[in-house]
Amino acid sequence: MSSYPLLERIGNPADLRAFDRRELHPLADELRAFLIESVSKTGGHLSSNLGTVELTIALHYVFDTPEDRIVWDVGHQTYGHKVLTGRRQAMTGLRRWEGISGFPRRCESEYDTFGTAHSSTSISAALGMAVAARARGEERRAIAVIGDGAMSAGMAFEALNNAGDIADANLLVILNDNEMSISPPVGALTKILARLMSGSTFHAARRAGEKVLGVAPPMLDFARRVEEHVKGLITPGTLFEEFGFRYYGPIDGHDLEALIPTLQNLRRLKGPQFLHVITRKGQGYKLAEADPVLYHGVSQFDHTAGIQSGKGGEKPTYTQVFGDWLCDMAAVDPQIVGITPAMREGSGLVRFAQEFPERYFDVGIAEQHALTFAAGLACEGYKPVVAIYSTFLQRAYDQLIHDIALQNLRVVLAIDRGGLVGADGATHHGAFDLSFLLCVPNMLIMTPANENECRQMLYTAVCHDGPSAVRYPRGGGPGVAVEPAMQALPVGRGKIHRHGKRIALLAFGSLVQTAETVGERLDATVANMRFVKPLDEALVAELAASHELLVTLEENAVIGGAGSEVARVVDQLPQRPRMLRLGLPDRFIDHGDQTQLLRSVGLDVDGVLAAIEGTYPANS
Amino acid sequence: MSSYPLLERIGNPADLRAFDRRELHPLADELRAFLIESVSKTGGHLSSNLGTVELTIALHYVFDTPEDRIVWDVGHQTYGHKVLTGRRQAMTGLRRWEGISGFPRRCESEYDTFGTAHSSTSISAALGMAVAARARGEERRAIAVIGDGAMSAGMAFEALNNAGDIADANLLVILNDNEMSISPPVGALTKILARLMSGSTFHAARRAGEKVLGVAPPMLDFARRVEEHVKGLITPGTLFEEFGFRYYGPIDGHDLEALIPTLQNLRRLKGPQFLHVITRKGQGYKLAEADPVLYHGVSQFDHTAGIQSGKGGEKPTYTQVFGDWLCDMAAVDPQIVGITPAMREGSGLVRFAQEFPERYFDVGIAEQHALTFAAGLACEGYKPVVAIYSTFLQRAYDQLIHDIALQNLRVVLAIDRGGLVGADGATHHGAFDLSFLLCVPNMLIMTPANENECRQMLYTAVCHDGPSAVRYPRGGGPGVAVEPAMQALPVGRGKIHRHGKRIALLAFGSLVQTAETVGERLDATVANMRFVKPLDEALVAELAASHELLVTLEENAVIGGAGSEVARVVDQLPQRPRMLRLGLPDRFIDHGDQTQLLRSVGLDVDGVLAAIEGTYPANS
Repeated sequence: MSSYPLLERIGNPADLRAFDRRELHPLADELRAFLIESVSKTGGHLSSNLGTVELTIALHYVFDTPEDRIVWDVGHQTYGHKVLTGRRQAMTGLRRWEGISGFPRRCESEYDTFGTAHSSTSISAALGMAVAARARGEERRAIAVIGDGAMSAGMAFEALNNAGDIADANLLVILNDNEMSISPPVGALTKILARLMSGSTFHAARRAGEKVLGVAPPMLDFARRVEEHVKGLITPGTLFEEFGFRYYGPIDGHDLEALIPTLQNLRRLKGPQFLHVITRKGQGYKLAEADPVLYHGVSQFDHTAGIQSGKGGEKPTYTQVFGDWLCDMAAVDPQIVGITPAMREGSGLVRFAQEFPERYFDVGIAEQHALTFAAGLACEGYKPVVAIYSTFLQRAYDQLIHDIALQNLRVVLAIDRGGLVGADGATHHGAFDLSFLLCVPNMLIMTPANENECRQMLYTAVCHDGPSAVRYPRGGGPGVAVEPAMQALPVGRGKIHRHGKRIALLAFGSLVQTAETVGERLDATVANMRFVKPLDEALVAELAASHELLVTLEENAVIGGAGSEVARVVDQLPQRPRMLRLGLPDRFIDHGDQTQLLRSVGLDVDGVLAAIEGTYPANS
Repeated sequence: MSSYPLLERIGNPADLRAFDRRELHPLADELRAFLIESVSKTGGHLSSNLGTVELTIALHYVFDTPEDRIVWDVGHQTYGHKVLTGRRQAMTGLRRWEGISGFPRRCESEYDTFGTAHSSTSISAALGMAVAARARGEERRAIAVIGDGAMSAGMAFEALNNAGDIADANLLVILNDNEMSISPPVGALTKILARLMSGSTFHAARRAGEKVLGVAPPMLDFARRVEEHVKGLITPGTLFEEFGFRYYGPIDGHDLEALIPTLQNLRRLKGPQFLHVITRKGQGYKLAEADPVLYHGVSQFDHTAGIQSGKGGEKPTYTQVFGDWLCDMAAVDPQIVGITPAMREGSGLVRFAQEFPERYFDVGIAEQHALTFAAGLACEGYKPVVAIYSTFLQRAYDQLIHDIALQNLRVVLAIDRGGLVGADGATHHGAFDLSFLLCVPNMLIMTPANENECRQMLYTAVCHDGPSAVRYPRGGGPGVAVEPAMQALPVGRGKIHRHGKRIALLAFGSLVQTAETVGERLDATVANMRFVKPLDEALVAELAASHELLVTLEENAVIGGAGSEVARVVDQLPQRPRMLRLGLPDRFIDHGDQTQLLRSVGLDVDGVLAAIEGTYPANS
């Protein structure tokens, strides 16, 4: 690593607060350089962290952290915060197995007051903290730092609406407005923020009026009265003032000379305050400024040369298989529409958005709305496909049950990131979807074992007149060539991949490949179950009748997962072989690479072999 | 029934549209009288339906239903709509077994364009319909009718934000502003609406300005420029105009002479329109006007005398047991706070709100925020108790996982309406909570078998340093006296209620009583399992070793429910008895009284006996 003399003086924010104000600008330069170098070596989020360098320094400089509570929304902009709060050296292990997390975590530092990663939780959490301080008569501040993208989620609105009711809680909401969530900004809120940013405020207009009207005092008086009238009855300043906050800004979030005195003033004020800060993702690193989406989340790269374009020729990810399928499907079926809650890139919808702009809907970070909007379209005969990460589908669970499944509407959920996702860790693993989907009536649930099966299952889903889900993992599969032709699979039918003896492995999705290897080793039968719901009960019965041990394998919580349904079928059979359910254990699983994580939970080949040996010794 | 000559002329809305405008006022009187008489005989929602009589008539009179789509938010205000759309006679079976639903249902009528019941879905669904019409070049309108309470949910905001992006969709949002959701209104939005209602608009202010300034043309010109400046840069009219809607109103929602021409005009406009209508819950029925909360949802009553106060001396409901416990607990522990998402009455928090106003938080219809706000309080050492219905907890699933369980925070969920709720039907049954909670790590989940156990489990939950849930059914229990003293139960320990032979019944919560009766009949062992998680594995093993059949009983989806965890434990045992899992079947269950519903799914005594006989014949 290069040398960072100013950073080296900072063991914790108290050290920072001893800095002379004039040292902060060079400190920001150092911190930025450190982040670029560090992230280029570990991978991680880059653009967002470069955008908050000055804000992070200013917050820890002005506020008495950790006594004052900073809650970082989403939390992927906290690398600078980690560096300033004693974790500079730990940054080499960022997002790695047993290293520090890419998000704030309460167990990692007292400065991480609230664990975040899913968007738009910060105002709610900080309000809770502010109310607690109020109840105890403590003067501490609670500060939520939230991006403009995160502000589009309903939860943030719910929190603003509630905070407006609690006038004496010392809550500061800082809107970090960089005109970009992960995907480009959408929604009416974007336009509202753009108007606020366009440079003028009501107060500026008033001062202009006073200046001009100064020559005619009676008119000035009248203008003042009209102004009060207008202000009081209709529009007290801005959207945020409507909610009971005092609104300040917008100010330049890269200008420490603006940030620090503003924050010092705000620290003295009581009640809910709202500061609008304008920043730029990737600030100070020209490559990231030019393409903040490319530099949003990065793997290792040469920070001088920048990220090099893909080598090509690699096998496609499931995300790409989905994106290509959606375009092909839309080309032949005009009823297909694609919906994403602000995950155009991550969900593989870039090409679809370009080729079918009229049928592409980025609804913002708004999973709840995404599903019910899809339901409305389905009522009219359209076939909406909602591309969503497993972990974010948790946000729309009620809408899935109440608006889609209960009405048996034809909505396809393309569930990406099912299973362990790797470096993003516990907040992002798709660990629960099979469990929370299985109990929902009317659902069709499929888990592809390979890329071609993924495509055919998506087609099967569209053909199904009801709600359906195709659940695939992050990254690539075994590399099976995708057939252009689309053919629906027989619903509720699994497939035996290998005939063996005594032991049958009933595998779902990503673990079929593992099951095949284990099957070779043990000469066991291997079934690719394909359908989680409806389960192939006939196949289960057949395997149960002809084997001594049934082993279910899934990259989902073992509690309530596909294996529990296999067991229920087996329990109803006259002859029951032994059962072994393998899946994710009943604990939250940390970050690390996917292979390492699977090994850690015993879902690699060795782990499965050991589990089988433990239940059913080979010499038994 | 009395005679309703005008209503009798209406078989469907086309008949209504043939009416002379002068007949509409007497028609409204008739419809109101009909609703009072009808609901007094069947029970159901009253206040909300009396508040929308004129709006319902005006909508069907002006719009070409069902071609134009009306989506009624929450849907508990649709009785008038049902009467006008061919279901007048069916109102005698309202909310009863095999009768019509108390909410709109697509399967019930083509005029019910979207099933609702949970709040705040209407704008999303109607936007989907409007986008579909746009895509097909159809002129039909999509109309969302949403209350001011429902507008406080994040989902409504997400939909408004998205609709503002889709300028050419013919969406009309009608805000039915009655200053009351089920509980009194809370949140900043309430104040915003009150300001809008106070009678003046920007345009009125402008006209006043023009009039006065008319004597000084250059000043008028200046004032106009300032006004444009102010309007364009800061505040285009109202909160809703900020979101890209054209805002109209407020108008009197009981004045057909205002409603009809306004709707006729709006019907001709394109793009997103927003009409603010002021109504009064209970309108036209003095008793309901005076106490709209009492008349919100009613049982049968004498509509002349009104609802008589409770007879007293009845056994308390679980809701009351919870409410009393919370007050007692708060009295001894100053860290206790109570949180409700707009369900003060339904969740039994009226007394707590009165006795502990500083520790009572009604956060609005905002389940997501409610849980994360609780998480923030828990971070500061408070012990939040969130009172929530099982079905509405579905709205906050991600917050439970990501903000509470992952951080292992001490938040108590008091889950009311677990299991079948009766007349509210499929949208309100608490059918899935055990399934979706079981897979969440760190959760402690309890199901009380009686009133006293409920109190002691709530206390056990508060003593537990992590997330916990006590899940109890709607209505009353077996009538066990509640002991004032609070004593924590041993965590993860069930209790044998009866020792029997061959068969063991492992019952959870509301079905323990049923199991006891069945146990007597069959001389079977009966265990009150108490803890769904952690399960009493030792007890399961003990019962498995000493019985030939284990039967699990729960008022939750059999898929992924408590029985599936019992089975998983059994599968790991060397000696496995037969298993029979009883619970709710894999379909949505209609409305009816709770006893009837339990019988329909085989969870009454006879059903359980039959299921056991089917699996394990007595003479086997």
